[in-house]
Amino acid sequence: MLFSYVSHLECPKCAASYSHRERHQLCACGSPLLVRYNLQALRSAWSKSDLAGRDNSLWRYRELLPVEHEANVVSLGEGMTPLLPMPRAGAGMGIPKLYMKDEGLVPTGSFKARGAAVGISKAKELGVRSLAMPTNGNAGAAWALYAARAGIEAAVVMPIDSPVITRAEVAISGARLALVDGLISDAGKIVAQAVRDEGLYDASTLKEPYRIEGKKTMGLEIAEQLGWRLPDVILYPTGGGVGLIGIYKALLELKELGWIEGKLPRLVAVQASGCAPIVKAWEEGRAESAFWSESATVAFGINVPKALGDFLVLEAVYATGGCAVAVGDEELLAEQRQVAALEGAFVCPEGAAVFAAARRLRASGWIKEEETVIALNTGMGIKYPDTVRADPPILPPGGVMPAGPRASEGGEAR
Amino acid sequence: MLFSYVSHLECPKCAASYSHRERHQLCACGSPLLVRYNLQALRSAWSKSDLAGRDNSLWRYRELLPVEHEANVVSLGEGMTPLLPMPRAGAGMGIPKLYMKDEGLVPTGSFKARGAAVGISKAKELGVRSLAMPTNGNAGAAWALYAARAGIEAAVVMPIDSPVITRAEVAISGARLALVDGLISDAGKIVAQAVRDEGLYDASTLKEPYRIEGKKTMGLEIAEQLGWRLPDVILYPTGGGVGLIGIYKALLELKELGWIEGKLPRLVAVQASGCAPIVKAWEEGRAESAFWSESATVAFGINVPKALGDFLVLEAVYATGGCAVAVGDEELLAEQRQVAALEGAFVCPEGAAVFAAARRLRASGWIKEEETVIALNTGMGIKYPDTVRADPPILPPGGVMPAGPRASEGGEAR
Repeated sequence: MLFSYVSHLECPKCAASYSHRERHQLCACGSPLLVRYNLQALRSAWSKSDLAGRDNSLWRYRELLPVEHEANVVSLGEGMTPLLPMPRAGAGMGIPKLYMKDEGLVPTGSFKARGAAVGISKAKELGVRSLAMPTNGNAGAAWALYAARAGIEAAVVMPIDSPVITRAEVAISGARLALVDGLISDAGKIVAQAVRDEGLYDASTLKEPYRIEGKKTMGLEIAEQLGWRLPDVILYPTGGGVGLIGIYKALLELKELGWIEGKLPRLVAVQASGCAPIVKAWEEGRAESAFWSESATVAFGINVPKALGDFLVLEAVYATGGCAVAVGDEELLAEQRQVAALEGAFVCPEGAAVFAAARRLRASGWIKEEETVIALNTGMGIKYPDTVRADPPILPPGGVMPAGPRASEGGEAR
Repeated sequence: MLFSYVSHLECPKCAASYSHRERHQLCACGSPLLVRYNLQALRSAWSKSDLAGRDNSLWRYRELLPVEHEANVVSLGEGMTPLLPMPRAGAGMGIPKLYMKDEGLVPTGSFKARGAAVGISKAKELGVRSLAMPTNGNAGAAWALYAARAGIEAAVVMPIDSPVITRAEVAISGARLALVDGLISDAGKIVAQAVRDEGLYDASTLKEPYRIEGKKTMGLEIAEQLGWRLPDVILYPTGGGVGLIGIYKALLELKELGWIEGKLPRLVAVQASGCAPIVKAWEEGRAESAFWSESATVAFGINVPKALGDFLVLEAVYATGGCAVAVGDEELLAEQRQVAALEGAFVCPEGAAVFAAARRLRASGWIKEEETVIALNTGMGIKYPDTVRADPPILPPGGVMPAGPRASEGGEAR
């Protein structure tokens, strides 16, 4: 039994093939590369029951991950996040079988830790010493911290409006950090220049092939946690879209392994009205998106005006009979308060967008009452404290607690 | 097989006994109450192998928890946090077998979620509709959010200097929130008055008996994760001390069940120099602590001038041959940066205190090189962003990433 059944890298556009034992970034044709596995061999060597007793981390699926030697695994215990029933929130929307996959319960409090864990582990295996990346905050925080654990140097550039907490995370890791007075696309250009000037490994979204593999474990976990039966719908907050690409890839691989059967869940790309290039492309039936000018949303993680993997996101949505939905900032912030008050889950604004989309798709009839629906919350609300207004009374020692009405109110856009 | 083997409540001071099927707060003698189980029956009914295949949450130990009916379990997926090797940080201290139990990976990003999950579940089972509690921030956040999931009303009072993020957590849960211009002891008096005036359930630390039961699962998990072998030392950041009391209780129960053998780990209560009542009591060989005036520390969660359960903490330390150590704010903040830069873990200041204590105890020879040492990190560093200074350069679009030296530096006291 091998530790990993990785076989090679493949271009989804031109079908060129590359070795996974050398450093590669994009294909010569400009497309992101995907990791391929020897699924035929794995099908006979591996069975679901082999998972019993393995670690509660994404490394339980090591055969379907690209790291070949266990010694290169860089882990902070990421993965196997809860799949929680949301009965009270679901009742309010008319979706009794509503679940939340809660990616707040990972190192750094954001699902970006999955991509960082696998991406950094593979970078270590490939002998990378220094890397650079642009970020909207959370990915940079995760990669900087995992890089520190691996002993790899990291340089991170983020927009000045990124969540302030993610600056502290990058700073304390010891990584190089710069802010740009612009968007993630501007940060990307600065990183590209640094990569050329300094010969750094480019860890930008989809410019290295391994981050997808970390993200795809969300799909593997959902399948395992539902006992290898599939939900009807998965809603995903879509910026770069790597998680959605990854979940789709995971499901296709599980199908090829014979571990799941039947129709795949309809994948829904959720965006913010202030930055909805994928939604626009989907509405127009296009295969790629166009750059979204003057993008703005409180859900900062999905403020991505043009994603390198947009064509892969759209392919996953089309192939599964899914859809793409944009929700407004007020709408998603109201949903964030609802989810907290009804279920005790303080989700991030991106995660709140997904609940708002579920409500809307149920109202329109696109989601049926009896369907099993998974809302993917990509991180903790505490990373965005400014989305909540707290204006409590201040008492002197010996003061008296004011009676109701409740002295605090959630929520207001900043 | 029962869901729970809970049998009754018992006073550790006067041995009085109470029913776990009625609401109780303190014993009539003023002491906190402890939950007792029918361990004799459980010993023959339950074995380690029964845990295989159970959920990755603290509810895998339901037989040793006080909730009798599964329908009353209020869970957000808490528990079974990673036990991570810390080889690089350990090498720097001369403790090669250093591990971190990372309580950042729970709902609300703090170990307080364990006490809240079990405490709220039992409150639901007892029919509680409204509760109140004082808090240094994190416990109030956790209890308010779990209460929301349970449909229970919560009222929370916290010092004005509590971490600002915890206000947002309480506010978005819909709970009543008030700040007090004082310490947690002042918040406690306001809550006590509200409990009397409004007939609320008092969820103050140790004034309800069930929070300890949630916290004790840290001890159960450490034992299971080490294959039912015990470490030599466990270091715990001690404010109210419930976690340390709980871990000790867990180990005694496991011993009585026959699941573990031999000497218990030496339990170390770590405090901040600016608030070290337990350390002072231990140094003086006393059974109880005295109120610590003018307490102050950046590790706000352990700014507790007088803990109701101090005698139980000291008993656990004495009985296991442990000790109590105080570390300064500068020392713990330096350790916080070290742990992040070497291991990629952004621990909270309270967790950092524990690493600083480990370093000091190794230097003094109290910890031996070959010993297995567990540092308990009680929460995520991101809940205390002010402990990190990030002062990165701001670039215009099209700017150039500055070369090293690294453009950002971690850490400085606020």
